[in-house]
Formats: sequence, C-alpha cells, structure tokens
Amino acid sequence: MPIITLTTDFGEKDHFTGAIKGAIYNELSDVNIVDISHAVSPFNILEAAYIIQNAYHSFPKGTIHVIGIDSELNIENKHIALKLDDHYFVCANNGIMSMICAEIAPEKIVEINIHDKIHTSFPVLDVFVKVACHIARGGTLDVVGKSITHIKPIRNIKPYVNDDKSQIVGTVIYIDNYGNVITNIKRSFFETIQKGRAFEICARQHKFKIIYNRYSDIVNFDTPEDKRHVEGKGLVVFNSGGYLEIAVYKSNSATVGSASTLMGLDMMDSVSVNFINTQAPLKEIEGDIY
Amino acid sequence: MPIITLTTDFGEKDHFTGAIKGAIYNELSDVNIVDISHAVSPFNILEAAYIIQNAYHSFPKGTIHVIGIDSELNIENKHIALKLDDHYFVCANNGIMSMICAEIAPEKIVEINIHDKIHTSFPVLDVFVKVACHIARGGTLDVVGKSITHIKPIRNIKPYVNDDKSQIVGTVIYIDNYGNVITNIKRSFFETIQKGRAFEICARQHKFKIIYNRYSDIVNFDTPEDKRHVEGKGLVVFNSGGYLEIAVYKSNSATVGSASTLMGLDMMDSVSVNFINTQAPLKEIEGDIY
Amino acid sequence: MPIITLTTDFGEKDHFTGAIKGAIYNELSDVNIVDISHAVSPFNILEAAYIIQNAYHSFPKGTIHVIGIDSELNIENKHIALKLDDHYFVCANNGIMSMICAEIAPEKIVEINIHDKIHTSFPVLDVFVKVACHIARGGTLDVVGKSITHIKPIRNIKPYVNDDKSQIVGTVIYIDNYGNVITNIKRSFFETIQKGRAFEICARQHKFKIIYNRYSDIVNFDTPEDKRHVEGKGLVVFNSGGYLEIAVYKSNSATVGSASTLMGLDMMDSVSVNFINTQAPLKEIEGDIY
Repeated sequence: MPIITLTTDFGEKDHFTGAIKGAIYNELSDVNIVDISHAVSPFNILEAAYIIQNAYHSFPKGTIHVIGIDSELNIENKHIALKLDDHYFVCANNGIMSMICAEIAPEKIVEINIHDKIHTSFPVLDVFVKVACHIARGGTLDVVGKSITHIKPIRNIKPYVNDDKSQIVGTVIYIDNYGNVITNIKRSFFETIQKGRAFEICARQHKFKIIYNRYSDIVNFDTPEDKRHVEGKGLVVFNSGGYLEIAVYKSNSATVGSASTLMGLDMMDSVSVNFINTQAPLKEIEGDIY
Repeated sequence: MPIITLTTDFGEKDHFTGAIKGAIYNELSDVNIVDISHAVSPFNILEAAYIIQNAYHSFPKGTIHVIGIDSELNIENKHIALKLDDHYFVCANNGIMSMICAEIAPEKIVEINIHDKIHTSFPVLDVFVKVACHIARGGTLDVVGKSITHIKPIRNIKPYVNDDKSQIVGTVIYIDNYGNVITNIKRSFFETIQKGRAFEICARQHKFKIIYNRYSDIVNFDTPEDKRHVEGKGLVVFNSGGYLEIAVYKSNSATVGSASTLMGLDMMDSVSVNFINTQAPLKEIEGDIY
Repeated sequence: MPIITLTTDFGEKDHFTGAIKGAIYNELSDVNIVDISHAVSPFNILEAAYIIQNAYHSFPKGTIHVIGIDSELNIENKHIALKLDDHYFVCANNGIMSMICAEIAPEKIVEINIHDKIHTSFPVLDVFVKVACHIARGGTLDVVGKSITHIKPIRNIKPYVNDDKSQIVGTVIYIDNYGNVITNIKRSFFETIQKGRAFEICARQHKFKIIYNRYSDIVNFDTPEDKRHVEGKGLVVFNSGGYLEIAVYKSNSATVGSASTLMGLDMMDSVSVNFINTQAPLKEIEGDIY
C-alpha cells in the first residue's frame, strides 16, 4: 500500500489538512496517509526543511512526501517533484529541499506543469495531491513536469568556518518541543574540523567543553538522587539527527524552563565553537553554567 | 473501506480522541479514521460549522463525519444523524449543521433514539461511535432514530444587506492558523449584490478596494525583491472556500503579526462592504493601509 | 490487522512522531497506527499515566501501546514491556504503568534486553518500535526481555483517608482541554468511604455538596434560558473515567475561564472531601460558589 506523508504549516485547527486527506482518499482507496507535522511555523522554510530531513528516511523506500509550506504558485515560486534516496517529494521550489539535497543528490527533479488544467487558490489540495496520487499509482515524474537540474537554495543550512579552522560559527535552525536549541553544526562536519582538539562552545554567555551522546550522561548515578542537582542544568549533545544541540536536562519551557527560555536562545542566533590546540578531554564535567 | 472523520473540541492532549478511535476499531476492523480537527475552541459551534463545511466535500461520497462539540445529551440538546450531499453526519442538534444545511438540503434527518440502552457521560464514545459504525456497516438511519424535518439554526451564518443594497454587513466567523480573518460573506452572495459596482471594504479603520484571487497577487514581481515591501501588507481575498477573507501577506501571529493581531479583528467583529455606483476597477493597487 | 498506539511528550511539531510511524511501516506494511496523545507535558509521568489508563481499554484486545515519555535508557531507567488486561504496553520503567497496575495485575512484565545490538539516542524509534513490531507479528515477550515481577511506582495515584474515615484528601492529577480539574479520587473508592453520608468537597475556598453525573445536570431546564446563569458556574462530577472532577459549565480557559483558571487550581493541588454524619441529600443545588 503506498504511503503519503504530509508536512505543512496548516496548524492543528483549520480544515486544510482534513480536506487534503479527503482528496487523497477520493483518488486512492488503499493508501496510508501519515502526518509528519502540521505545526511548522507559518512560512518557515528552515523549520520545515529540518523536520522533513529528519523524518523522511525512517519511511519505506517509495514513500511520497507532500510538503505544504508557502506553496502558492507564482512566477517566483514554482511547484516541483523530486526523486531522491528512493523517496518522492512534492513541494514548492522555495528552498525546503535544499537541506536534504545538500547531502544527497536528487535522482530526478521536475517542475510541475499540470497547472493549465487547474485554477486553484489551494494548490496543496488541487495540485500536490494530484501529483502525489499519480506517483502512488506508479506514474513517472515526466508525465507531470519538465526536468530541471537545480532547485532554489536557502541560507543558513551550513555553518561558517574561519580560514585557520580555529572556529566554527553555526546558526540556530530549530527549537524543539523541549525547548532544546538545535544548530546547523552536524557531527560529521564538526569532527572533520575538530581533528581531536579540545574546544569551547559559546552560546551567548554560556560555555560548554563537552558534547555528550545522551542527555543523562550528565548524571552521576553514584550520587544520591537528591544531591545530583542536574535538573535544569545545561548541556550539549549531538542529537539523534546528528546535529549539535544545546539542551537543558528534563526541560519544559512552560514550567522549569528550557535551553531556549533559560539561555535566551532563539532561531537564527549564533553558536560558536572555538578549538584549542590541545587534545580534547575524554570525559570531564564542564564548568559551572548556572 | 468506510471512512469515518472526527471533528471535535477535545484538543490534542486528552485521552478522548484516542478512546474514540479505539472504540471504532473495536466495532470495525477495516475502516479509515481521519482527524479533521480536534482544536475547535471549546463549545464553539460556529468554528466547528465552518471547519466541517470546508472539509467534508473533499471526502468520497458515503463518508461518515462524527462531530463532537457540545454533545452532552439533555432535553434541549438531542443527538441527530443526517444524510446530505451523499455524506453522513452524526452530531448534536446544536446548530453545527445549519451552515451546511443553509446551502444544501438534507436528504434525511433523524433524532437518535438508541439512548435507552446506553447510560453514558461520554456520548461521542458511546452513542456517536455506535451510530457511525452502524452506518459504516450499511445500516439505515431509520434504525437508529426517528425522522425529523428541522434542525436547530445558528445566528451569524448569513451577512446582512440594507434595503437599497448599498451595503453588506458581515461578521467574522473564523480566524485561521495564519491569523487571517474570515467573514460570512461568500463570493456568490457578494457578486449577486455587487452587480459590477466598485466597493470599499471596511474592517475597523482599515479600508480595501480590491479583492484578490491569490495572496501573491499583491506582489509586483517586476520590482526587485528588496523594494517590494509586501510582507506584512493587508489584503482581501476570496479564500479557497469562497469566503471573503482579510489577510496579511506572509503573516504569522506569533512573530511578524497577522490580520487578526495587526488590525485588532476578532471573532464576531463586523466587516462592511459599501458599494459605490461606479464600475469596479479591474486591477488597482489599493491605498496605503499601514 | 495489528493496532499500535502512540502516547508521547513529543509535541505536535517535531519530526519524532513522523519518524516513528515511518519506522513502524518499515517493519509492518499492514498495521493501524493510532495517536493517543503527543501533547503530554514534557517528562510528566502522571499525566501520561492518566491518559493511557483512560484510553487503552477502548481498543481491541491485543492492541500494542507504545508510550514514549522520559524513555532515555540509563542505569535507573530501564525499558519494559507488559501484558495486562490482554493489552501490551512498551515503555520506560518510570512509573507510567503504576496507575493501571494499581487496578489490574499485569499478566507478564519483561525488562527489555535487546539493547546490546542497538546504540541509539532515540530509543522510542530504535527500541520500542522493534519490540512493538515483534509483538505485532505474534512474538512473545520472553524473546525481547527477561521476566521481572515489580515495576517502579509513582506517588499521588491514590488519595489519603484519615483514621476515622471522616476525610479524604486527594490530589489534582490532570487538567483537561476544558480546564476541568481531575483528582485522584475515584467513584468506587469515594463510595466505599462515604457509606451514604453527606459531604463537603473543598478546593481552595470553593465548596461543593453535590456530585453530578453530567455537566448539564446543574441546569434547570424549566427556567427560561436567559435566566439560568449557569455558564461559568462551578460543579463537581464523576467524569467518564470515574474520577472526581471539578468543572465549570461550558468552560474555556482562553475566553470565559475554567475550573483551573477561575478557581486557581493546578496540578498537585489538594482537594478534600469532608464527610458529615447525616444522610447525603439526593438532589440539592449547592450553595453560592461565585
């Protein structure tokens, strides 16, 4: 059974998502429709790019991913369909795919050209659903569009490195449900520049010298529970998507606070890594943060 | 496979929606359950009526729509099931269906009378699910209720027109995820009254003389991108549901602002259209709004 | 077709839930995946326990419930799988199951031990999905873990009763989408202690002498609608899960207010029931609350 996923900025309340699912079932009776997210901030391409990059590869090969963010058709915002990593993507050519495409080259990109027959102010419903269902029935991309070779890029998907490679300057590209602050610095990129050196990560006035693998690696389980004082403590991890993330242990933005609320870190803020020409410590509790 | 949709004010957190889906799977192993919305504001009949009206018709004929808003059974709030436009609806008789019924006459309405056997404080789970699954199995409405001919109306689903047809006074009936402000003035109704005349739309102190078909129709793509100054600009469109909507280009209530936040427009506010006895301009950029 | 439900604190925005669904479809092509809730407050075990307890039993026997709250594996937080009431549960051993287990003894509990082969910082995706799909294919719990006999308890799942049984002191364990305040006092427990006596329920300075079966039982339908003044009025019910709940008629925390906002009641607050050695009134409107 084909799988069609949905990633949009439609929110949880409006009728848009329901209408799209209805339209898919109208074309295909046997299909699994899966919501990835409808809570992307309105028109936020960077958030959508991060979410789809981290979700798509868990799905079976052949899955069709419909992305409905800033998809109104106009002379500068065309519709595209891609095949990449044996997955299909249907979206506007507004940069959403550039984060995935920076890592994996698309096998095929087409600019959708079925609009002559369709007058619509709801293109996700009237265009993207049609293209997705065409692919789900085994149709080729050539039938719905003409091949193109380049897609529109977005800024801030790669961090900056200075000439002597003593510093990486990254950008906050996502803040998650726990208020964890995710940068555009990936583990593989970091390690290529680091080459085993010690480092100091700076986010506003907060500094970190260790990157953990798991949040609870900051806990000393030999200490009695009431003497640990780790809840609310800041730390840095490479998250499950491989991104450098500034977190707070057992955070909650609405109650005890989070990396975003406690450290005042927001989308597009800078986070820098300064390398020191000594060997990195294998394991050391970082200095007093709060 | 039958499709059952859910539209409720249960929110995203509580167990109610999960329990309902479990109860449906307990009755039917082969069924597609589709969430339309669970984020209707508590007890807000008008919002629910707008959402279901704009979502239902995308679904295949025969779809069963369960609406769980203000559904506690009492002497003034009976449960009904309807067949309309080849779709089925199961809900309380509290006005939710009056927006759809104002446009399309129901084929059949029954007042549900299976309550003798059911004592419940969760009627969506214990009554609506039973009725929906009965219909999904091919059962008739007559088995679960007695025919009635009228349903309870709600106010504010139609705008007011003055005697000389120089003015329409509409009401804000919905605010969407982008903070766009949707009135009860439909395109077909507007055009019947307009008869080609020019007009001025007034929402608080904001005035508009053009209604666009697409949000990006306010963009002059011949101007360089950094000289356009359209983000944050107010405009009026007929939205994809055909309703007159006051919008802000690329709005976000949480960051740059939206029609609702920037213009101070809220549910039930008035929006008027004043007709001028000259021909409407075919295309003209409206005056300075901000 | 097997059913796998998901209850997490992942929120509605992040990629986590989508990734998990993709991973399940990667293992099983025929499966119904049902969201119970992803809006549990971060790390809030008590909320999650309440939600899963009230949702699970509506599902068919054999359903597999994956609960992803505070599930990072460490020396003090092991992963478990349970069979109970002919349902399966996969979660961390952090107290989430203790509310259900206080009422129904598990048939089997295993501590999951498949981690040797899996290095992960996203255990719900990499461990819980594997275990759930193993069970969905008909696999036994013994294959994925070693039997244990006890699970970690949580506090505040049972109310306190004084020695002469003149008082129950309960705790607020959940606040629902309507701002209704739910205590840990269950009807069956209440009635065992009450033995027909009259009572006064105290929540802060608010007092109630009646427990209703339905919210609209406070309405006197013989009074004309505009003279009823029941909207915004406080009341106490046993809710559909059997818990003593303090509610406000037709509440909305964002507009007219709710039990939580109007009475200042929050999670973990105390609610007491004081029994009076007279017969309880069969029906009486409680004193002036507001």
